Amino acid sequence: MDVVTMGESMALFTPEKSGQLRYVQNYSRSFGGAESNVAAGLAKLGHQARWISRVGEDEFGEALLRFLRGEGVDTSFVERDPEAPTGIYFKEYRKAGSMSVQYYRHGSAASRMAPGIVSEKALKGASFFHMTGITPALSVSCREAVLDAVKTASRMGVRVVMDPNLRLKLWKKEEAVPVLKELLGYTDIALPGVDDGEVLFGTRDPEEIGRACLALGCHLAVVKTGAGALLVTETDVEQVEGSEVEVVDPVGAGDAFCAGFLSGLLDGMTPAEAAARGHQTASFVVQVKGDVEGLPDRRELAESDSRDVRR
Amino acid sequence: MDVVTMGESMALFTPEKSGQLRYVQNYSRSFGGAESNVAAGLAKLGHQARWISRVGEDEFGEALLRFLRGEGVDTSFVERDPEAPTGIYFKEYRKAGSMSVQYYRHGSAASRMAPGIVSEKALKGASFFHMTGITPALSVSCREAVLDAVKTASRMGVRVVMDPNLRLKLWKKEEAVPVLKELLGYTDIALPGVDDGEVLFGTRDPEEIGRACLALGCHLAVVKTGAGALLVTETDVEQVEGSEVEVVDPVGAGDAFCAGFLSGLLDGMTPAEAAARGHQTASFVVQVKGDVEGLPDRRELAESDSRDVRR
Amino acid sequence: MDVVTMGESMALFTPEKSGQLRYVQNYSRSFGGAESNVAAGLAKLGHQARWISRVGEDEFGEALLRFLRGEGVDTSFVERDPEAPTGIYFKEYRKAGSMSVQYYRHGSAASRMAPGIVSEKALKGASFFHMTGITPALSVSCREAVLDAVKTASRMGVRVVMDPNLRLKLWKKEEAVPVLKELLGYTDIALPGVDDGEVLFGTRDPEEIGRACLALGCHLAVVKTGAGALLVTETDVEQVEGSEVEVVDPVGAGDAFCAGFLSGLLDGMTPAEAAARGHQTASFVVQVKGDVEGLPDRRELAESDSRDVRR
Amino acid sequence: MDVVTMGESMALFTPEKSGQLRYVQNYSRSFGGAESNVAAGLAKLGHQARWISRVGEDEFGEALLRFLRGEGVDTSFVERDPEAPTGIYFKEYRKAGSMSVQYYRHGSAASRMAPGIVSEKALKGASFFHMTGITPALSVSCREAVLDAVKTASRMGVRVVMDPNLRLKLWKKEEAVPVLKELLGYTDIALPGVDDGEVLFGTRDPEEIGRACLALGCHLAVVKTGAGALLVTETDVEQVEGSEVEVVDPVGAGDAFCAGFLSGLLDGMTPAEAAARGHQTASFVVQVKGDVEGLPDRRELAESDSRDVRR
Amino acid sequence: MDVVTMGESMALFTPEKSGQLRYVQNYSRSFGGAESNVAAGLAKLGHQARWISRVGEDEFGEALLRFLRGEGVDTSFVERDPEAPTGIYFKEYRKAGSMSVQYYRHGSAASRMAPGIVSEKALKGASFFHMTGITPALSVSCREAVLDAVKTASRMGVRVVMDPNLRLKLWKKEEAVPVLKELLGYTDIALPGVDDGEVLFGTRDPEEIGRACLALGCHLAVVKTGAGALLVTETDVEQVEGSEVEVVDPVGAGDAFCAGFLSGLLDGMTPAEAAARGHQTASFVVQVKGDVEGLPDRRELAESDSRDVRR
Amino acid sequence: MDVVTMGESMALFTPEKSGQLRYVQNYSRSFGGAESNVAAGLAKLGHQARWISRVGEDEFGEALLRFLRGEGVDTSFVERDPEAPTGIYFKEYRKAGSMSVQYYRHGSAASRMAPGIVSEKALKGASFFHMTGITPALSVSCREAVLDAVKTASRMGVRVVMDPNLRLKLWKKEEAVPVLKELLGYTDIALPGVDDGEVLFGTRDPEEIGRACLALGCHLAVVKTGAGALLVTETDVEQVEGSEVEVVDPVGAGDAFCAGFLSGLLDGMTPAEAAARGHQTASFVVQVKGDVEGLPDRRELAESDSRDVRR
Repeated sequence: MDVVTMGESMALFTPEKSGQLRYVQNYSRSFGGAESNVAAGLAKLGHQARWISRVGEDEFGEALLRFLRGEGVDTSFVERDPEAPTGIYFKEYRKAGSMSVQYYRHGSAASRMAPGIVSEKALKGASFFHMTGITPALSVSCREAVLDAVKTASRMGVRVVMDPNLRLKLWKKEEAVPVLKELLGYTDIALPGVDDGEVLFGTRDPEEIGRACLALGCHLAVVKTGAGALLVTETDVEQVEGSEVEVVDPVGAGDAFCAGFLSGLLDGMTPAEAAARGHQTASFVVQVKGDVEGLPDRRELAESDSRDVRR
Repeated sequence: MDVVTMGESMALFTPEKSGQLRYVQNYSRSFGGAESNVAAGLAKLGHQARWISRVGEDEFGEALLRFLRGEGVDTSFVERDPEAPTGIYFKEYRKAGSMSVQYYRHGSAASRMAPGIVSEKALKGASFFHMTGITPALSVSCREAVLDAVKTASRMGVRVVMDPNLRLKLWKKEEAVPVLKELLGYTDIALPGVDDGEVLFGTRDPEEIGRACLALGCHLAVVKTGAGALLVTETDVEQVEGSEVEVVDPVGAGDAFCAGFLSGLLDGMTPAEAAARGHQTASFVVQVKGDVEGLPDRRELAESDSRDVRR
Repeated sequence: MDVVTMGESMALFTPEKSGQLRYVQNYSRSFGGAESNVAAGLAKLGHQARWISRVGEDEFGEALLRFLRGEGVDTSFVERDPEAPTGIYFKEYRKAGSMSVQYYRHGSAASRMAPGIVSEKALKGASFFHMTGITPALSVSCREAVLDAVKTASRMGVRVVMDPNLRLKLWKKEEAVPVLKELLGYTDIALPGVDDGEVLFGTRDPEEIGRACLALGCHLAVVKTGAGALLVTETDVEQVEGSEVEVVDPVGAGDAFCAGFLSGLLDGMTPAEAAARGHQTASFVVQVKGDVEGLPDRRELAESDSRDVRR
Repeated sequence: MDVVTMGESMALFTPEKSGQLRYVQNYSRSFGGAESNVAAGLAKLGHQARWISRVGEDEFGEALLRFLRGEGVDTSFVERDPEAPTGIYFKEYRKAGSMSVQYYRHGSAASRMAPGIVSEKALKGASFFHMTGITPALSVSCREAVLDAVKTASRMGVRVVMDPNLRLKLWKKEEAVPVLKELLGYTDIALPGVDDGEVLFGTRDPEEIGRACLALGCHLAVVKTGAGALLVTETDVEQVEGSEVEVVDPVGAGDAFCAGFLSGLLDGMTPAEAAARGHQTASFVVQVKGDVEGLPDRRELAESDSRDVRR
Repeated sequence: MDVVTMGESMALFTPEKSGQLRYVQNYSRSFGGAESNVAAGLAKLGHQARWISRVGEDEFGEALLRFLRGEGVDTSFVERDPEAPTGIYFKEYRKAGSMSVQYYRHGSAASRMAPGIVSEKALKGASFFHMTGITPALSVSCREAVLDAVKTASRMGVRVVMDPNLRLKLWKKEEAVPVLKELLGYTDIALPGVDDGEVLFGTRDPEEIGRACLALGCHLAVVKTGAGALLVTETDVEQVEGSEVEVVDPVGAGDAFCAGFLSGLLDGMTPAEAAARGHQTASFVVQVKGDVEGLPDRRELAESDSRDVRR
Repeated sequence: MDVVTMGESMALFTPEKSGQLRYVQNYSRSFGGAESNVAAGLAKLGHQARWISRVGEDEFGEALLRFLRGEGVDTSFVERDPEAPTGIYFKEYRKAGSMSVQYYRHGSAASRMAPGIVSEKALKGASFFHMTGITPALSVSCREAVLDAVKTASRMGVRVVMDPNLRLKLWKKEEAVPVLKELLGYTDIALPGVDDGEVLFGTRDPEEIGRACLALGCHLAVVKTGAGALLVTETDVEQVEGSEVEVVDPVGAGDAFCAGFLSGLLDGMTPAEAAARGHQTASFVVQVKGDVEGLPDRRELAESDSRDVRR
């Protein structure tokens, strides 16, 4: 297993047209979840990725597992919950260029993940353990489960990768900041966005954000700035520019960047080279509606190598 | 207001094809709820009907209110919940002739209804207060709310109509039976099915079921037997046959019967005549997919009068 | 040209689901019209068929012409109306097994057909001129146009075929009966149904209906009885049984029968043999939704010859 | 009742794809009508709005009434016509950025509105009576009905608001100009566009258009210039800029402006403040396909207050 | 691996409505293939199933692999063909109760399977090797590949299961019979239908068909008779009745029977018990449109055990 | 007949959403083919156009013929192939602004066209014979068929129009160049694009490309440069600018240009005037999805004359 990740994924219902959902009759079901996006992105690039979660013993749970297994993601450590349902959510396109969501995830199977779900057995042989700041926001037991997971990974020498992905819709700032900072303490590579930085560290300056991550114990911070990424280590600061493409749907860009970046590291690239691959990967995703549907495979990545990327 | 009813309604998602939902991508949204079906049925027949409930301050709540207001149902006493969502559910057609549901109603806005929601003001001038045995199954506060409502109605001289509608998926028999029996104690007209009777009174014999209702305090029991209905009072037992039509979708037949039956009483019919109208009304609904979509209006009822009904 | 026919065809909007149209959001457009059904049926069987009508200079007119030209029907004598629109209509499936329509055909282009539209040039060389009792119901000018057409056809020795197709929704009995009787006076072959017979001649007895047609001047009456057809001439009465197939949608069966019957006569069959082909043709149509979509081609007819037909 | 309006609304069929309708098979039904758009916009902002019209006793009439009642619009003064149908129309997106319509409204129920339909009873207590220049174009009786309505409103001291909305597709300039000028004579607040101005007064200069309205008797003219609005009174001329948003579908912008503007006046704003709210309201609508579907509610308006508006 | 199977699967396009495909605009894509149906059926019942085939390096190949991996089928031995496409086919529902197909499989990737594709490595540890008579009909190299596979399986002691599945649309009787007979010579368990038997052995008598299989070398013949199955061994003849359910779509019943039957054997059942499970499994499939979509899982099978099955 | 053209057309399946086809379930069928696009464009402008090809005796062949006949194209010389299927293809929108195709055309009926298919009878009276460089890429017999056709046309004095339309996906440059050059030797009017020019003559300079065509024997070369066209004859070089419109879908622009250009010549315009009409025609097509669906008719062309075109 190259990368192990954990988190909640849900059935996603997309309305057939824009406007308030009250006027929309038809919906199309797909799937969403930051961590499973990363796992699918890695699998599509030919890496071994394991996604750990908890889903209901229901049809949307079955559908979700089928989708991810279909993408080549290992789901053998996913728990099934006989009592709690698989979470679902609805997208709404109310205004041009914006999107909001309505969740039915409260009390979901995934919110009942608990310490021990990411076992030593599950992490054995992994190069990276990836998680996001969404999971600890789901419930107290999820918070404990993530903390337990990063401790186990640390202990086993599996490098921890964290995308803070701070969602103030799911928890309050006062609650979130100390938890995320504690998790960053176990993190090797942090992938914060500028918005994350503002809440966590009170600054939108990429370099300051990076340095704050290092101060908490990270070895590398890859600060996503929209146009590109700033790589900050104890000794180095390096800017990697993104590619310029037409953006059809920005959702999933961060996850795709993460998948591409980890793919690069797994292939032995330098962090800067890996970040360039991250940008490349993201540039595919934003040109297609859907988080996973636009992820490139190895051949597509190779074809776009010479054309799309600017350093 | 002719009839006041209370209960939960939800957004209903119907899959575009049969088979396990795991294989279905497209869904169409409508609405479902036993009590709002009755209210809509009455409104369509020209009566004044008020539906009392609690829905989220969300898009599906807006959609539900629009739908029922559109049908002519009074929703002015519906509460909006800023924190809990409007419940939703999914239908699945797994095998020929059968249907199952997946609910996302736990912790819904409606499950947070509490005593007082059916106020004297809301009941003022009503001929009937209608409720079902589904509502007390939703939560403790719902149970208390229904009991409070029937007490208020009794006190005000509003006749209480109860469809036991026992759903063992929502609560256990041990829990349900005493609650429903207590509610039947405040009920003037009970509309049990044979399945209800079996769980409540341990018998599938229509007359015995009717007598058991009377023993609890009801003045009239209309026992639905599938093929027709048995009307039981202290002094009389009368069988009213249903009409024979092709059944496309049986869901909603009981609610339609109830609407037609109350419509008949409101028009001054005898209970037996009213039950015949109930059967007529139900015969429309079962010929169309959807609970409300098949309900007849006054003109349609009149046209079918001479043709479809057998006594 | 083997057969020339005239009449109105319209764009037909079919709801995506059953129930009152008030609840249906999505519609699918096709086309309908008794006379163009006959023309398409003949063209599909390899005969030359011309359909004469008047359609708007609008998109539904264009669509209708494209559809019929696509089927191989000659539309070169169709008039375009720069002012009046092409008629349209909606189907509604309210109850199991029944269907009703909502027309937007009042003042349509076709209702403005006038004498002369079926010219000698248009009829030249034709074996049959076909029309139905729907056309004279559309307007006064249509009535005159049909009368003019049958007179022209008679004069030219083109045999007139008439399907009375009496629609009491379009005109009153008092208005319809004398007009249809006058038209039957110019008719060689009448194809009345039993319902037509009842209104026109006050009898549902097939033989009596046939004799009444002959009395008006027809040489052959093919009385459609649902299960089969009774052929009545001055000298002969012959019953031809229909085939037994599962009926999915009965609409269009009469038109298909007429197309198959005329096809048989054009191929030199006896009337009884031709009626058998009519039944065969109809048996294809009733197994498919849509009037034209189920019409068979020559090969299909041949294949079903030995299997489906009973005399 | 805060605002009473009158006019025709129709079932609107939108093709599933662009291009000539002749190639489009699937259509989706919604509703359209300038005056009911204004009523729905006001209701969504929490005001009491009554829409007066005449619809057929048919399914599209039922659907239309359900839709507007659902939106919270009072429809209790709408007449039902047992003989004439509810009008319908089709949109066509032939070229990028343009849209045309095909009407089936000739002889519709609404075209049979007649004087008296806007009764004193219907106007009682209203602050504004709103109408547009579309209604008098529908028929002679509609013309008389509008004139009768504005006279009644004037007499009762209800302020008359008029959007000229001149449609040269429905009537000729020679016919339209005197009628609209007569109506402006009874109008307190006119909301002409620059195109209206050009036809009515021969000028595209906003101030000149405003002055011409005043000369006819209006007290306030709000001349819509696309980018904003010019408010002209006897003593004052004030420009109110619109907001800059991405326009997805411009249809309905004028109606939304009118709804927001009247909402502002009802809330006690100055005309300039009310016009700013009008622009805000319109900015929501143009970002969503559909006239009503994009209208904001009170909360959305509040949220966008600080962000979207420029004065 | 419990069962290894080989064969072609294709993307399947189902028309949205019945009638000739010439009139159908919209199609929905799923997947079909007898052998992958069996593999999916086994995986859904909790067994390890491997499907071996060859698919194009194209999108439909990717989709097919995702679907089967999603179902839990092992696809690690599937070959990818950089030059030949994945086959596709279209269904047509021309007449009530009948279905025909249009293939685009000539020269497909799967038709290029060759000896060696079912390697010793692929068969290692398997209890059964399953194949059908469809594969040798695809091409000469496929014929050789199947023969090579059964020889390898025999040599390794893997029991060979064969469903003759004779398709006279794909090859001629003269060609097919000797090939299928040769394959039956390597077969332990044959699952012929009565139609297969008629072509192969000139008899529709189930027992005679079974005996003919044994004569060729099979140890057990399970002759499918529609209503049930006749099990024939050297020493025994036993009839196992099927269940009686409403048949919505019979396609896939034979594959489901085979999956259930092998599942039973893998669970240590007697052949007769296993055949009963086969019937049970098939009874699920025929109640749902789609070959795989109706397959039951272990829990569903258990629930239906006491209810649906007759011996 | 004004113009005769020959070539392959196929059923085209368009996915309902963008992204890799592996994720797309629903498809919509239309039709595509360069030469039939030209024929349909001419027919829509009122000219007589004949399309010659070979299609399968299958449903997609029937559908294709219906579509083109519907458009008014003469299909009486199209051959039916009882053995080979009508080709089909799928579009994929993988990245913003790009499109790729998956063909199932290998061994199609059209690829079996052979010399003689464009007979003297078929060309009799034609002003132009049009073909493209796609046809000779389909098979050896197609190559021979095209060469035979241009020779026949030359001999009969029918002017040959050729759009090289070089598709390196269908054949190799080495194969293509000599064939296309030989065909240009029989061509009166060549319509190369700049990309064609680069492969054929090693230059992207429009004038050089034009001169190279003349050198091979053409009398007029119309070199399409995206923004406009350069007309090159022995004596003259003239630039004709295109119109500036929003491009929704560029596919079909070249075919539309060709249709408009030939329409102009048939109407007696000079080549420069005809090229302007070509640009106008193309400007309609690129504003609509679909090759044929956006083609203008005569009235639309007239209306846009004064507005859209710049010389």
